Amino acid sequence: MEVYLDNSATTKPYGAVVKEIMRYMEEDYGNPSSLHRMGITAEKALKEARRTVALSLEAMEEEIYFTSGGTESDNTAIFGAAMARKRRGNKIITSQIEHPAVLESCRKLEDMGFQVEYIGVDSDGVIKIKELEQAIDDRTILITVMQVNNEVGTVQPIHEIGLIKKNFDQNKGSDILFHTDAVQSYGKIPIRLKNSPIDLLSVSGHKIHGPKGIGALYVRKGIHISPYLFGGGQERSMRSGTENLPGIAGFGKAVELSSKNFQQRISNMNRIKSYLREGIQSEIQDIRINSREDGVPSILNVSFLGVRGEVLLHSLEQAGIYVSTGSACSSHKKGQSYVLKAMGLSEKEIQGAIRFSFSEFHTMEEMDYVLINLKNAVSKFRKLGSFR
Amino acid sequence: MEVYLDNSATTKPYGAVVKEIMRYMEEDYGNPSSLHRMGITAEKALKEARRTVALSLEAMEEEIYFTSGGTESDNTAIFGAAMARKRRGNKIITSQIEHPAVLESCRKLEDMGFQVEYIGVDSDGVIKIKELEQAIDDRTILITVMQVNNEVGTVQPIHEIGLIKKNFDQNKGSDILFHTDAVQSYGKIPIRLKNSPIDLLSVSGHKIHGPKGIGALYVRKGIHISPYLFGGGQERSMRSGTENLPGIAGFGKAVELSSKNFQQRISNMNRIKSYLREGIQSEIQDIRINSREDGVPSILNVSFLGVRGEVLLHSLEQAGIYVSTGSACSSHKKGQSYVLKAMGLSEKEIQGAIRFSFSEFHTMEEMDYVLINLKNAVSKFRKLGSFR
Repeated sequence: MEVYLDNSATTKPYGAVVKEIMRYMEEDYGNPSSLHRMGITAEKALKEARRTVALSLEAMEEEIYFTSGGTESDNTAIFGAAMARKRRGNKIITSQIEHPAVLESCRKLEDMGFQVEYIGVDSDGVIKIKELEQAIDDRTILITVMQVNNEVGTVQPIHEIGLIKKNFDQNKGSDILFHTDAVQSYGKIPIRLKNSPIDLLSVSGHKIHGPKGIGALYVRKGIHISPYLFGGGQERSMRSGTENLPGIAGFGKAVELSSKNFQQRISNMNRIKSYLREGIQSEIQDIRINSREDGVPSILNVSFLGVRGEVLLHSLEQAGIYVSTGSACSSHKKGQSYVLKAMGLSEKEIQGAIRFSFSEFHTMEEMDYVLINLKNAVSKFRKLGSFR
Repeated sequence: MEVYLDNSATTKPYGAVVKEIMRYMEEDYGNPSSLHRMGITAEKALKEARRTVALSLEAMEEEIYFTSGGTESDNTAIFGAAMARKRRGNKIITSQIEHPAVLESCRKLEDMGFQVEYIGVDSDGVIKIKELEQAIDDRTILITVMQVNNEVGTVQPIHEIGLIKKNFDQNKGSDILFHTDAVQSYGKIPIRLKNSPIDLLSVSGHKIHGPKGIGALYVRKGIHISPYLFGGGQERSMRSGTENLPGIAGFGKAVELSSKNFQQRISNMNRIKSYLREGIQSEIQDIRINSREDGVPSILNVSFLGVRGEVLLHSLEQAGIYVSTGSACSSHKKGQSYVLKAMGLSEKEIQGAIRFSFSEFHTMEEMDYVLINLKNAVSKFRKLGSFR
């Protein structure tokens, strides 16, 4: 049996997504900028995908810009906002548990003279909202807080943060931009941008059974941020470069499919997540569940004390079970999970952490298989004292 | 009959490229950063593609960074060089006929306080190399000149420019970076980076029957430029973001195939280009051939005086023949071709220009079909006085 439980790292594209991509490679392979029929067909597909993504977010078509993925969306939002607003102030507020695409962009901005405040989180990974409130001042130009954390799945109080910001703006006559990285929430929790306090939002294709190398950035109408890639003026000059039409069409198809059976998919994932969590809790001693029950349905992070996560990962791999320690984006880097560290976990808890991340396609039988292998592996390594 | 003669805008992916992409979507869909088998398979494919691209350029694997395409490669090279070298000087030298990805990046750098010199070209579109030589001074940090122009196909004297730069560096103890946009030359003229004066070189997948949304930047070993996308540290921290593995593997396959039968492909294209050029010259009066005979084999640009290019384009489209006026990247923008303008062409010549761009798959019969339709259309519109 093969059980892929690393869906927060990347997902298998839907069959219909693959078909869509093939169509735009084998038949309608034109460049949307070309004036002839091939170009016009491509341009129509581009418009259609933009409409699908906009609809899924309750946004307008003109608020959606396609990018090469979540990282580019985050970089564009953060650098674009900082450059556009640098005359108004130089302070940026974020959290300690953002994705590296946000954290490293913020660190680069620090090098460039901006001041960044990294707000801490509680033991559940929820941002300390009082600290965030106190951090906002007259020099603040951007708040960037992720909607769902990629390692533990905690849903951040985005709406509350937005209200705090709005309140501050109204009292002080300021106009702080609010960005959220929604890469792990998109397709998993409803996002309604109409009348929301969110100004900028990043999503990615390959986390929702769409293609790799494609994502989108939502920019609220009326808001101006600096473009990040300069050239032929595609994406209304916000993101130049020949449009990756197969990727965009495939992304649109993935969004369409995941919007269609949204409630059912979420229920499936939640049921699977609960089943695995309860199984682990009842079968295995000395663990810490690092994901809140009300976290995103796709992520369950558990620390198995006295076992090294990486050893457990490779043992499960032998049984065809694919999981991760922390997130894919930081797994190759030695050193501890900064997310679990910010949550205040002990060294032992951090070293024994495993992330199970689900798709909508799992069965209880698969989870039983995972549980048996997990139980055996944990017990074996604890006996062996694998914890060096 | 359908004859797609817009291959400089974009190409139809090779069948083997599509297969490769499908494989990395349907079977080996892992994230190269994942520690388990799925991740390792993905990482191997990444390494393999990098090796193929490196080999095709006579470069080293560690000199190749995958990007989302030619525009990102150009932006990364230009901004990355400017940022890394800004303490040494603020002058950049380029040409008036660069791709917008270079020109707009340079214009943005001007906004940021850099000084950019845009060197002119002669009536063939060859850069005025004496002017370039005179423009180089102590404050110069970057020279960026394209290898092949995308509208007319002129091959620039890259080697000569490199020698001028090298000479200046040796005399003055300076270390100017030399970048070339090779998007239109890659796969069409041999590029050998070993022992070449080129420090930075941009290529793109979708111009060589590879996928859209993927490209590469060559950065000579030992040279440091600032990264452009920040995040998870992929591509040795030069270009963060989950690797677009299907795109990268497909790109690698396209490079492999186009390297294999290089001479034959080039001969085919040259024969086709000559055949069409000679046909036009003998069949149609009042034209100007805007492409040198020794230009890239894939591009033939011709002005049909007294006819508006766009009208001709749509007429040919009715016969299933797809061409472009100027380049795809600027075709939606009203206004004249800045390339033809820089070459000193008259208003009439610019307005009547058509770019035919070839793949390796054309036949003489196709060109006969193009010639008949072209001759009829030109004659019809001249009679109608379509030129408003």
